[in-house]
Amino acid sequence: MLLFLYPDATEQTGEALLTKLREAGLQGQLVAERPRRVVRLRGAPQSLEWLQGLPGVQHALHALKPFQLALKTSEKHKTTIRVADHSIGSAEPTIIAGPCAVEDPEDLVSVARTLKRNGAHLLRGGVYKPRSSPYDFQGLGREGLELLADAGRTVGLPIVTEAVDERSLEEIEDIAHVVQIGSRNMHNFELLKRAGAGRLPVFLKRGFAATLEEFLLAAEYLLERGNPNVMLCERGIRTFSDHSRFTLDLSIVPRLLELSHLPVFVDPSHASGRRRSVAALAKAAIAAGADGVMVEVHARPDRAMCDGPQSLEPGAFEPLAEQIRLLASVRDGQREAVQ
Amino acid sequence: MLLFLYPDATEQTGEALLTKLREAGLQGQLVAERPRRVVRLRGAPQSLEWLQGLPGVQHALHALKPFQLALKTSEKHKTTIRVADHSIGSAEPTIIAGPCAVEDPEDLVSVARTLKRNGAHLLRGGVYKPRSSPYDFQGLGREGLELLADAGRTVGLPIVTEAVDERSLEEIEDIAHVVQIGSRNMHNFELLKRAGAGRLPVFLKRGFAATLEEFLLAAEYLLERGNPNVMLCERGIRTFSDHSRFTLDLSIVPRLLELSHLPVFVDPSHASGRRRSVAALAKAAIAAGADGVMVEVHARPDRAMCDGPQSLEPGAFEPLAEQIRLLASVRDGQREAVQ
Amino acid sequence: MLLFLYPDATEQTGEALLTKLREAGLQGQLVAERPRRVVRLRGAPQSLEWLQGLPGVQHALHALKPFQLALKTSEKHKTTIRVADHSIGSAEPTIIAGPCAVEDPEDLVSVARTLKRNGAHLLRGGVYKPRSSPYDFQGLGREGLELLADAGRTVGLPIVTEAVDERSLEEIEDIAHVVQIGSRNMHNFELLKRAGAGRLPVFLKRGFAATLEEFLLAAEYLLERGNPNVMLCERGIRTFSDHSRFTLDLSIVPRLLELSHLPVFVDPSHASGRRRSVAALAKAAIAAGADGVMVEVHARPDRAMCDGPQSLEPGAFEPLAEQIRLLASVRDGQREAVQ
Amino acid sequence: MLLFLYPDATEQTGEALLTKLREAGLQGQLVAERPRRVVRLRGAPQSLEWLQGLPGVQHALHALKPFQLALKTSEKHKTTIRVADHSIGSAEPTIIAGPCAVEDPEDLVSVARTLKRNGAHLLRGGVYKPRSSPYDFQGLGREGLELLADAGRTVGLPIVTEAVDERSLEEIEDIAHVVQIGSRNMHNFELLKRAGAGRLPVFLKRGFAATLEEFLLAAEYLLERGNPNVMLCERGIRTFSDHSRFTLDLSIVPRLLELSHLPVFVDPSHASGRRRSVAALAKAAIAAGADGVMVEVHARPDRAMCDGPQSLEPGAFEPLAEQIRLLASVRDGQREAVQ
Repeated sequence: MLLFLYPDATEQTGEALLTKLREAGLQGQLVAERPRRVVRLRGAPQSLEWLQGLPGVQHALHALKPFQLALKTSEKHKTTIRVADHSIGSAEPTIIAGPCAVEDPEDLVSVARTLKRNGAHLLRGGVYKPRSSPYDFQGLGREGLELLADAGRTVGLPIVTEAVDERSLEEIEDIAHVVQIGSRNMHNFELLKRAGAGRLPVFLKRGFAATLEEFLLAAEYLLERGNPNVMLCERGIRTFSDHSRFTLDLSIVPRLLELSHLPVFVDPSHASGRRRSVAALAKAAIAAGADGVMVEVHARPDRAMCDGPQSLEPGAFEPLAEQIRLLASVRDGQREAVQ
Repeated sequence: MLLFLYPDATEQTGEALLTKLREAGLQGQLVAERPRRVVRLRGAPQSLEWLQGLPGVQHALHALKPFQLALKTSEKHKTTIRVADHSIGSAEPTIIAGPCAVEDPEDLVSVARTLKRNGAHLLRGGVYKPRSSPYDFQGLGREGLELLADAGRTVGLPIVTEAVDERSLEEIEDIAHVVQIGSRNMHNFELLKRAGAGRLPVFLKRGFAATLEEFLLAAEYLLERGNPNVMLCERGIRTFSDHSRFTLDLSIVPRLLELSHLPVFVDPSHASGRRRSVAALAKAAIAAGADGVMVEVHARPDRAMCDGPQSLEPGAFEPLAEQIRLLASVRDGQREAVQ
Repeated sequence: MLLFLYPDATEQTGEALLTKLREAGLQGQLVAERPRRVVRLRGAPQSLEWLQGLPGVQHALHALKPFQLALKTSEKHKTTIRVADHSIGSAEPTIIAGPCAVEDPEDLVSVARTLKRNGAHLLRGGVYKPRSSPYDFQGLGREGLELLADAGRTVGLPIVTEAVDERSLEEIEDIAHVVQIGSRNMHNFELLKRAGAGRLPVFLKRGFAATLEEFLLAAEYLLERGNPNVMLCERGIRTFSDHSRFTLDLSIVPRLLELSHLPVFVDPSHASGRRRSVAALAKAAIAAGADGVMVEVHARPDRAMCDGPQSLEPGAFEPLAEQIRLLASVRDGQREAVQ
Repeated sequence: MLLFLYPDATEQTGEALLTKLREAGLQGQLVAERPRRVVRLRGAPQSLEWLQGLPGVQHALHALKPFQLALKTSEKHKTTIRVADHSIGSAEPTIIAGPCAVEDPEDLVSVARTLKRNGAHLLRGGVYKPRSSPYDFQGLGREGLELLADAGRTVGLPIVTEAVDERSLEEIEDIAHVVQIGSRNMHNFELLKRAGAGRLPVFLKRGFAATLEEFLLAAEYLLERGNPNVMLCERGIRTFSDHSRFTLDLSIVPRLLELSHLPVFVDPSHASGRRRSVAALAKAAIAAGADGVMVEVHARPDRAMCDGPQSLEPGAFEPLAEQIRLLASVRDGQREAVQ
């Protein structure tokens, strides 16, 4: 068990913590002082809630090795990822948008043009679709990948799409700018190992039943194989709550920003499954400090073969993109408080 | 099953919907045209997700009576509740703040003064505490209630506190300005009936395992007994996700704002159980459209008998209150999009 | 934090545990030797999972006082509760059955007769119903209570029914043999205090989002006020799993039997919401070691005003009751292993 | 939406259902009469709970094709799978047992001998382990596979082990008798397609956040590619309930037995994470009608590199195996009622 102290913790704070631990019958040991103080507790896994409530403790992990790659080494530690001329993880919030699945090429170019005009940074579109049923539309595959690349080139947007196995990952690496590992594959550790050894930045979605620690460990699989360019994306978890498709767990955003140097995204479209809630939740994500959002936009949502009800119409994208930029600028003073 | 159409739905939209229902084998019947169109489906409860994806349908409910009191009758329908000189549910976001429990009178006045100076509208403080263990501090009761009222009078803030049964409700009615029904009593229907027949506005927290429909029906118990002044407050639900005490279900905010005319609040303190996440989530709540927030602030959180780790220090309240007002002003254009 | 060792733990086991704790940096202290060894860890709440995996440790609790009333003081410690001529918590499994709500008096007597003839021990029937909607049937109240008592007297069965507040509890105490506190009121601590001071044995249902520790603490409220006759009933929890109304958490049965001396029941009817699954789950409950089951049986389920789809028809009760007795006799050797 | 009537439903039952649907505004259409009646509702997905409560309806699915491969075509339809000289899915309950991971060869042979002597039918042992952390023991791989095969041959037990990608699947196909797809890969559709095209029977574990319908659709992926030998295994789901590692959802057992012809298993070891609960839950699974159980048994659980706390000691296996056989024989009359 490792306790990471706040970056500005003084020696005095550290001593006070060790005393408090001793009073509670625990033997803590200082294992690092720079860039920040880290205290190790031997053996016994304590309750995270209790440990994180101790004065000076920023976070606690059931960690196996003192310095995990997904964790910050200092308060200011932040990974930025360059994609085309945009820097993900910097002050400007990143907007990734596009249809759930690549279908009609004309619709795709049309929606991509709208996105580009209104300041989106990446074009998304699924071509290999992990579908619950073998009888559902499984995506256009290689052909779709080329359509997506064409649309991106036509309007001047880099592209991101999802890999579902080694073969699709290889095809995507040949042509796309970012590869997505979806929620259903966050626990597919062989795919993570392969993407970690790959060339493309990885957009990693949280498994819909994954804990924060499992999510960070999935990122660790990527980082440990040598790929430093990893983005984390909250996209809703499975709960009893039935007014939205999944329950957007927005409170993971400040926690991830505190713990990790990796850029943090939110996908309100898959989380809510409902067009009318997407804008409110995208704005909430930005206000909570997220580095960016991924939203679904479709030229004609009522004809979409996949996830039409949650896709924004192109006309709704412009005001949303504007509000996101406005909120992010207001948030400037806020990020300090969050971190 | 009732389908509520969007307030601006035309006759043509209504006809198109009826046709679509017929194609799906359903017989819909128009049961109201003003203030908005409502279509009833006889008998068979369909999947809410499917119905709410139909063109023109704003929301669907397993409703028993055509006009439930908690639901909007028009898009602009909004309840505002006057407490002292503040109007809850109007443009200005409402900030309710104070310690989890009333303990030391001097600390209480000290924190209340900070809250008042920084624009809080109501002072909260628990005196009857529903505690999981019979051996936990159960609150100061009547004595605490008087301390809370004194503090409110001293600094000029109206007060809100929680009732746990008929007797405590009566005492609270004598002296407080708003009564809270807590998460653990949202399903205590006898208490709801009693508060619905009472004089005070009711601050109703969502049960931590309640669905949206159950939450609105709990409000309906209050309204049906004659009390029109009801506020709804999301405060986190129980899920597997263990990085926060409860999972704040922020996506219920746009849904409640769409369906109901009642003011909608968020309590990020109980949801996260963690001081460092409170500000980010409070701001997210406002960005998502909430009418207000309830946050815990304690003069000396490390000495609190209850929920210290989630209480803000007084010094953190000022910047938060400012940011809330700033975000709400930015959000103006946003509220339109949400509703 | 208290660690309860297995009743047969030797001094050597205790020493080995203390050594193991020391190696993990924890200072344990032996606070009781009889009737069993109890080790206290100062202050720091450790992970229950880790502590309970230590050799010799039967269970660990975030306990505040060394000897809580709901916990066993020895392996053989078991509360039995005499109701009429049946002893709840003894070798013979207890069968509680009857309609969800008291409605038609003739149907009630008819079903009660079937139950009595086939070996049921208590007749259940709701007269004060906690209903999600104010417009739902709220039970027949006092009139229903008298109908239930009449039916019980007619066929010779003691009765159990649910109290929802102090007034209904008083009426029930005048006439019934056992009072039920339902799932929605498990967190209604004022009602628990009142029932704990009352005359009747209490049938306490687990809140549908309550943890094991919260459930035992609710029982502790009853015991602490002086009522020793408490039964615990698992009735399903809220999860994402949508093939049954709630998810029956049967794994709580062996845990409760290990920790507590109170009789443990299972209600498969409310858990599954589905007649066809009730028998399988009732039998599973008995095989897992439960002291009894509560099942809904209605004379004419298709006419029931409440929970018809989950009620057994009278004809299905006879074979179920037989199988329960048969399984319980097979289980004899099993109970040893469970405890 | 398809409604499957009970196999013994008469023409009259069918007519009554169609009338009832019409009264509820729905147009049902009879799409099959043999081997059982199936009614299709056009378009509108109704609430499963409501539909399944209609007289005559055994189950309802959001089905895309009238006859899905995982579903029963008649009440007696049951797949049996021959592995060595044992028939899985027949009257005799199947017991699969062995260590979580293959580690020490002598321990493995020793435990396998105990299992064989006490009537186990398959030896399990992980060699490719999907682990949350990249720093955790990932299994012995090919070397472990050979150790497992040797142990199986030595004691005369067929073996089952988990595949995590195409490569490991190929190795396993060369040497094992059954291949397992684990909970974390239930949504890995590319792996399902590959195993569906493979030679070995597949032991498919439910994803820990999968619905019943998603679980059956994962099986459908296997069947649709041509592999008829599929077993379904419930192993616990993620919920808020923290007294066990996962929440064993035993109520899925009677539902799966009703809907599908595939053999149904339960893994109480992974579900509970706790040795002391394994026997009670294994017995409950059999009483609920399961075709078999998978339990972890380790020669020296305290030295296991993986999941020691949930592994039975060899001495505990003998009485459990006996009780399972005894309960299954008692259950004979019960299976009728379940199905």
